[in-house]
Order: sequence, then structure tokens, then C-alpha cells
Amino acid sequence: MTIASDPPLLAVLKGEHRDPPPVWLMRQAGRYLPEYRALRAEKGGFLELVYDSDAACEVTLQPLRRFGMDGAILFSDILIVPHAMGQNLTFGVGEGPHLSPALSDGDFSHLTPEPGHLAKIYETVTKVRAALDPKVTMLGFAGSPWTIATYMVAGQGSKDQSEARRLAYRDPQAFQALIDRIVTVTVDYLSGQINAGAQAVQLFDSWAGSLSPAQFERWVIAPTADIVSRLMQLHGDVPIIGFPKGAGAKLAAYAAETGVDAVGLDETIDPVWADMMLPVGMPVQGNLDPLALIAGGDALKTAVTRIRAAFDSRPHIFNLGHGIVLDTPVDHVEELLDLLHKPL
Amino acid sequence: MTIASDPPLLAVLKGEHRDPPPVWLMRQAGRYLPEYRALRAEKGGFLELVYDSDAACEVTLQPLRRFGMDGAILFSDILIVPHAMGQNLTFGVGEGPHLSPALSDGDFSHLTPEPGHLAKIYETVTKVRAALDPKVTMLGFAGSPWTIATYMVAGQGSKDQSEARRLAYRDPQAFQALIDRIVTVTVDYLSGQINAGAQAVQLFDSWAGSLSPAQFERWVIAPTADIVSRLMQLHGDVPIIGFPKGAGAKLAAYAAETGVDAVGLDETIDPVWADMMLPVGMPVQGNLDPLALIAGGDALKTAVTRIRAAFDSRPHIFNLGHGIVLDTPVDHVEELLDLLHKPL
Repeated sequence: MTIASDPPLLAVLKGEHRDPPPVWLMRQAGRYLPEYRALRAEKGGFLELVYDSDAACEVTLQPLRRFGMDGAILFSDILIVPHAMGQNLTFGVGEGPHLSPALSDGDFSHLTPEPGHLAKIYETVTKVRAALDPKVTMLGFAGSPWTIATYMVAGQGSKDQSEARRLAYRDPQAFQALIDRIVTVTVDYLSGQINAGAQAVQLFDSWAGSLSPAQFERWVIAPTADIVSRLMQLHGDVPIIGFPKGAGAKLAAYAAETGVDAVGLDETIDPVWADMMLPVGMPVQGNLDPLALIAGGDALKTAVTRIRAAFDSRPHIFNLGHGIVLDTPVDHVEELLDLLHKPL
Repeated sequence: MTIASDPPLLAVLKGEHRDPPPVWLMRQAGRYLPEYRALRAEKGGFLELVYDSDAACEVTLQPLRRFGMDGAILFSDILIVPHAMGQNLTFGVGEGPHLSPALSDGDFSHLTPEPGHLAKIYETVTKVRAALDPKVTMLGFAGSPWTIATYMVAGQGSKDQSEARRLAYRDPQAFQALIDRIVTVTVDYLSGQINAGAQAVQLFDSWAGSLSPAQFERWVIAPTADIVSRLMQLHGDVPIIGFPKGAGAKLAAYAAETGVDAVGLDETIDPVWADMMLPVGMPVQGNLDPLALIAGGDALKTAVTRIRAAFDSRPHIFNLGHGIVLDTPVDHVEELLDLLHKPL
């Protein structure tokens, strides 16, 4: 139920339709912004920024000052959860993340979670929320168990999540135990963010696209439903956005079966199809191709119009279909916001 | 229209239902087979095998001798087409293919196709067909223009086909000209394979999954429809299988709009959904998760049963959802064929 003081993005997540749609962009705080690069150069590595709540707060606020987004997304990383669970986490220069030791044998008995590890993150949430204009919605997030497990098992990102998928076929019990443990930590983590001031949370399932339908049911839908139901008991009125990237046609089952309040759409999803297949009134978020944003001009305008038109009678939060790409021109983001502020 | 002498796989492609379903596996000839590795060690590189029609014929036949598949797929590579169009093609040891020079600027005026380049491939088709049991169907293939263009533009494979997608947004005219040229060569190439003895052909669109819906319409559906209509005029009775890997929910539009006779399904597609969404009677091919084949045992049996049950009233060719993986145990392929030869 929306209340009069809800900011636009939160109101849409609770089921209201707004025109123009509220907007934020995945990875809106990050390396494409010169002010981010400057702060990062000063502070050192990525993790130093994440665990320094003043710096993380500043980074979270940077895109809001520049563009006037409707949402602030906590500056952090989904791999903070396995880090808190006891894996070592490093980000090599020009490389992706590394978690060690990898759990490819399904044995995680040596992991010793440290209580209190996540407190710094909650501190960031509180600082950001205190600094926010009340018209802006504070968003927390976590990775979904399947995606987190793919990194924990392989120790790094991979092309097709083969190691986790193999383990899940080879030893479903061990894999289930790992997923269950991630579910528990994720509920605590999101609950902590909500207690610290997050007004809605997003579950990023970046690698949902590599699973066969039966595996998708078991490793994406079931654990997501578990997290949603536990969070609902703790924080009934805080909306949860599920973002199963690459789910394709399985998005409809995801939306119907997980209990999430809203779904994020990646850029490969046809918005006309999504509007037809998703439950009436369910809020959606997305789904501009990040490369159309890089192109700008007519390509951008055409893509934006198509998305807005498809969702003109559904609660819709405008966003990209995945994170903003490093070489996105800052003035194209301004161009996008100008386009969105005009009537369709 | 099927005729009495059509082998089972060809009959299914023409719309007949067979139980058990005929079967072949993508990359059924290849490195997981010891006899392939032995021949490759003797002959040198991958391209040496492809352009040696005796060796390519032998490799094509290897899995048939071992497993009794219903289809023989020409041993070749989709990048033979850009090679024939004038790009240099190399396969480094342990690396993917390289095409040079890359066409990232959209300029391909320097390409000078050599007529006759593809004759060796047609020779292989003729030799295989002559050696085949008449119960086995000879399949030709080519890459789809979008997928071929992604390699031609980037000069190599890539995680998200970013270079081709950027060029397509930045300079749609140049990209269209490249696509058109690939369409023309592909029609010639498939027609040549058919004249040499191919009884059906498959268009592999391995990277169809990275496109937004509007781009999918323009760069996947439209050029595929173009190829299909030109081939239909030349060879009206030769079935064409379209395999838009990663198309997700856009598979329904692909099946309805391209004119292909049958669609290949990758392993992320829910067969129950596909059976519901695809035109009644349209043959499908797929879609076992290659990692379920590696797992074997119960995981394999469950996955196979699920697929067969979904397609028990539709013309269905059993296959993987993508190519067989290098470390697949040969005896698991035997296990699969045993499962398929039992009633559901």
C-alpha cells in the first residue's frame, strides 16, 4: 500500500503507475563517472571503497548529484556475501573478482563466517539514507543464491557457470546445502540493509540464464521464493525486486512463483511480450540495451520510446537491461534523462 | 511431403512423428572421441581436416560407426564462410578462431571472395552421402548471418558480441550491407551443399541470445527469412532447421516469421513452453543440457524423460541444447542412445 510520502520509485514498486516513469540505472555509480575514478584513485582498490562507509556513501550519491535519479543503489558488490561467509575476496587490476579457496568439490565445512563483517555495509546504507532527498528511494541489494554459488564454486566468474552446474548435477545434496546456507546469510544481510534504511531491495541473479528449466526451478525459483517469504515475515511492506538476467521465457514462471513484488527485465526481453505475460499490475523495471545508451541519438530515442510505450499502462521503473558499460558517455545519460522527462 | 524412402530424421523434419525420436548430437564428431583425436594428431590442425575431404568425410562418419546416430552432420565450421569471403582464418592451439583483418570499422571493401573456395566442402558432402546407410540423413549447415557477422567484425569470439552490436547501432547501413553480403554467400553455400547431397540444412545462430528484441527482428529474423525464402525457391523440398541459440521467449516469433521448417532448442528452453508456443506440427530439435550428459545416471535419465514427454505428440529430433562438451564420457553417449531406444 502506498502512502502519500512515498517517493515515486517506491510508489511504483508498490503498484502505482507514474508517467514519466521513475528511473535509476544499474551501476549508475561507477567507473564511467570521472568523479568516481578520482575518488577510487585516491582510496585505492574497489574493496577499500566498499568497506569505507564514508567513501561508499559518497560514491552512491555521485550519480544523484549529476543526473537526479529517482533511486540510490547502495555502492557494494554481490560478492560481499561469500566474503562474509569466509572466502577470501580479491579484485585483481583489470580482472574480475577471485574467491578462494574455490568450492568446486562441494566442501565448504572450512568456511567460518565472521559475525559483524557486514556492519560496515549497513553503516553505508544509514549514511546514504540520511543524506538523501526524500523524493529519492534508497535501494539495497544482494546476489541471488544461484549466482553467488556460481562464484563460490568456481572461485571466479565464468563463461557458462559450468563448474557450479556440474556440481549441481553431480552432487545435488551438497549443492543444496550450499544454496541453503547462502539463503540464510542473504536474508540476514537484506534484513540488515532494510533495518539500516533501505526502502526496497533487489536480488541480482546475473547468471540465471545458463540453467535448464528443471535446474532453474530448483536453483533460482525455489531459493528466491524462500528468501522472499522470510523477508516478507520480517519486513512485510518492503518491496523486493527480482532480476533473473537471461531467464527468457522462464521469466513468467519466476514472476508467478517466487513472490517478488517486481521483476527486472534484461535487454533481451521483449517488453511487449513481458507486458502480456506478467501478472496484471506487477511492476517491471528495465530494459534499455546499455549499448543503445552508448550509441545515443536516434538509436537511443527509438529504444526508449519502444520500452515506454509497451509499459504505458503498467507500473514501470525505467532502467537498463544490465549494468552501465564503462565507456558510456556521461552526456548520453543526460540525454536519456531528458528523453524520459518528456511525455511519451 | 514425406516419401516412403525418407530416413527417419528426414521424415520428422517433414512433419512426421516418430517414437522413439531420431537422434543426432551437435558436435557429435569431435575431440571427445579418441578416434578423432588420433586422426587430428596425424593430420595437423583443425582446418587441415576440414579442407581435406577424405579426412573430413572420415571424421563425419566416426560417431555413426560408434553410436548409430540418425543424422550425419558435415564436419566443418561456420567460419568457412568468412574465410571464403576473404578474411584470413586461423585456429590457435587452445584458443578460439581468429579472423583477420577484423571489420570493426564496418569497412569490408577489401574482401575479395575466391570462387571455388567452397568446392572442397561440397566434395566432403558428396563423399559422406555416398558412404551413408540410407537410413541416415545427411545434414549440411552454415552459420546465420548475425553470428557470422559477430566474428567478422570482432575478428574472434567474444563474451557478449559487443563489437558487432555497437557497429549495428552506430552504422546500421554498413552493418546491413555486411549482413546482405553474408546472406548471398550463405545461400550459395547451402545450395552447394544440397546439390552435393545434403538432405536438410541447419542454420546455427549461436549468438542470437545477445540481441534486444528490435535488433533480433532486424539482424536475426529478417536475414534468416531472406535465406529461407531464397533456398525454398531453389530447393523447395529440402527442410531447413533454424537454431537461434539463446532466443528465449523470442523463439516463438522466430518460428512464426522466418519460414524455417523446424527449430532447434537450446537447453534453457522449457520444452513444455515450446510445445505450447510453437505452431502445431512444427518439428523441434533438442534440447538436452550437455552437462546432464556429462553427469549421466539419474540426472541424464530424468532430463531425457522430461524432454521426450513434452514432445510426445510433436515431430521431435532428439539432440543436445548445444554442442557436446570436450570431456563428455563416450559411454554416457551410449547410455543416452540406450535410453532413447526404450519406449517412454
